[in-house]
Amino acid sequence: MPYFDHFATTPVRSEVQEKMLEITRNAIGNPSSVHASGRAARSAIEEARSEIADAIGAKSHEIIFTGGGTEANNMVLWNLLRKNKKHVVTTKVEHPAVLKVLTELEEMGVTHSAVDVNPSGMVNPEDILSAIQDDTGLISVILGNNEVGTLQPIRDISLIAQNNGIPLHSDAVQALGKIPIDIKDLGVDFMSFASHKCYGPKGVGALFAKDGSDLHPLIIGGKQESNLRAGTENVAGIAGFGLAVRLAIKSLVETGQHLATLGDQFRNGVAEICNDAVFNGDLHQLPGIVSVSFPGMKSDKMMIHLDRESMEVSAGSACGSGDIKPSSVLEAMGVEEALNLSTLRISFGKDNTSGEVANLVRTIGQILNGAA
Amino acid sequence: MPYFDHFATTPVRSEVQEKMLEITRNAIGNPSSVHASGRAARSAIEEARSEIADAIGAKSHEIIFTGGGTEANNMVLWNLLRKNKKHVVTTKVEHPAVLKVLTELEEMGVTHSAVDVNPSGMVNPEDILSAIQDDTGLISVILGNNEVGTLQPIRDISLIAQNNGIPLHSDAVQALGKIPIDIKDLGVDFMSFASHKCYGPKGVGALFAKDGSDLHPLIIGGKQESNLRAGTENVAGIAGFGLAVRLAIKSLVETGQHLATLGDQFRNGVAEICNDAVFNGDLHQLPGIVSVSFPGMKSDKMMIHLDRESMEVSAGSACGSGDIKPSSVLEAMGVEEALNLSTLRISFGKDNTSGEVANLVRTIGQILNGAA
Repeated sequence: MPYFDHFATTPVRSEVQEKMLEITRNAIGNPSSVHASGRAARSAIEEARSEIADAIGAKSHEIIFTGGGTEANNMVLWNLLRKNKKHVVTTKVEHPAVLKVLTELEEMGVTHSAVDVNPSGMVNPEDILSAIQDDTGLISVILGNNEVGTLQPIRDISLIAQNNGIPLHSDAVQALGKIPIDIKDLGVDFMSFASHKCYGPKGVGALFAKDGSDLHPLIIGGKQESNLRAGTENVAGIAGFGLAVRLAIKSLVETGQHLATLGDQFRNGVAEICNDAVFNGDLHQLPGIVSVSFPGMKSDKMMIHLDRESMEVSAGSACGSGDIKPSSVLEAMGVEEALNLSTLRISFGKDNTSGEVANLVRTIGQILNGAA
Repeated sequence: MPYFDHFATTPVRSEVQEKMLEITRNAIGNPSSVHASGRAARSAIEEARSEIADAIGAKSHEIIFTGGGTEANNMVLWNLLRKNKKHVVTTKVEHPAVLKVLTELEEMGVTHSAVDVNPSGMVNPEDILSAIQDDTGLISVILGNNEVGTLQPIRDISLIAQNNGIPLHSDAVQALGKIPIDIKDLGVDFMSFASHKCYGPKGVGALFAKDGSDLHPLIIGGKQESNLRAGTENVAGIAGFGLAVRLAIKSLVETGQHLATLGDQFRNGVAEICNDAVFNGDLHQLPGIVSVSFPGMKSDKMMIHLDRESMEVSAGSACGSGDIKPSSVLEAMGVEEALNLSTLRISFGKDNTSGEVANLVRTIGQILNGAA
């Protein structure tokens, strides 16, 4: 079944499946136990920690494993409750795992300003600067957008953050394994990652927290993760995440080129069969994602047709795809409502082929012509 | 390698391993996606939700999947931040995933009273009643203790909670799969569970939240788990958890008898070889756990000897076993410090045999005699 929804989630690599099974069978202990079974589990976690750290140019102890990217974001944002400066500067195109958290934290005294983006979905660092208040305690900007792929100018924003002595968080859930990430070069203090977006298991993520960061745990209890994230660790999942990231980094360039090629093929193909198709975002983006609007063809209708042909894509982000509400990301980019509701998100993966893309284009053409 | 540390964690059942692999391979989608791959993942989660609900006499929609038991506890406790009544009544023998959370929440305005227990580690419901204040918004009492196994009189406490209109939470992480749990009979509003204590994978848990409970999410973002726990679900882990619980319930009586028999054999054997061994807790407890203190033999020394013989046990709870601090649970039970530091926690599992227990007793005897 041709799967074109890799920004929602990716299949787990077979090497990762094997690794997880091996750890489940051979490292049965609780990593907090001092006996041999516990030490084996501990060692699997520490190996994965090094793998993630190496992938982003961090030190091992700067990596905190979590139950996912959403939890990593929440950790950084809930942390504001404990700070004197409780205002957050963010953008209008963040994932709900940032924007909705900030909305809910309002009743507990955390305020925020979400700045506008341009029609490509990109924020202007000047606008971030203007939004900073005396009580701004955090800037949070996504690295690569989950609906249109647009990359944000994190490096420029980090200079502003540093000049103003404000920690910078970036949600890099979609970016890890798709583009090179160097946390020193980007100048971030916190960065969130998720395993299932790069061919690892679901339910595992990580937070990079720069040495000396003022961070408190959100999930409190045992002393796991240097007292920053309590609860018996998902040992097999963490080991799988580590391997998935190592393998993704190993083939980062080839995979990136492959995804970009498939994206180009799809864009060109669609442009040929449908003159009025609108592509959202610009080409300064994560590879392999295409957000395209078909005027007059509602995305839910299009998806039913594609599903019938066993072609799996998304309308807007997976998190909201049960709804038929317009995407707030596209709204922030100035896409008017009818077009917003006629948008598909196609996201290619490492195993998609040029033949599959050609089929997808042909099928979309048939649907638009009323022939499918 | 004889493993006697099942209260720290249990090995994953082979049927569960197979189920997880099957789901990983065949239900690759994001459960929030509407296409076939997404629907397959959604269906795996809902099947597991029914399995957990059935196991405890709840309705499916009263089960919220989390990243573990610790997270489930945290959810209920952090929820106090959003309430007017911010005082919690609890006991001195709770897991750190309750007591430490409450300590950290103090700076955010949540207060608590931790009531004493008797020398068996049991709380008197009258003491719970006395600790209730005008602003008490929650009572939280563990069902079965993780260090000594003592069962608390939750049914009696629930009557007090109901009479005073206060929600009751119980941490049942150690109890699930070891004793029958009926949430209606127990009268709880919230109950926490973890997969890895009953032969399921690590990194998955659940919260039972009674219909109509006033509960807010701790991990906010997407609309997963009825808007109560955001983040892409650990689909394979959840499916494994569901199956593990179903299988545990199926053999609950036989396994309970087996564990109780091994516990008795061990207690009798130790009493024979060591007159002054002290057993902590009483027999109103979870099956399969023995907390025993050997006067004059520090537990870390004992554990090194046992580890050399490849016998895996714990000193106090696994969460604190890296430390050599006295256990606060034993302290609350009135165990004096030297004895506290000379305590082992032996916890048997379904696959342990009478022969293994005999060997363990013999080895302990040799260590005590200086012969091992």
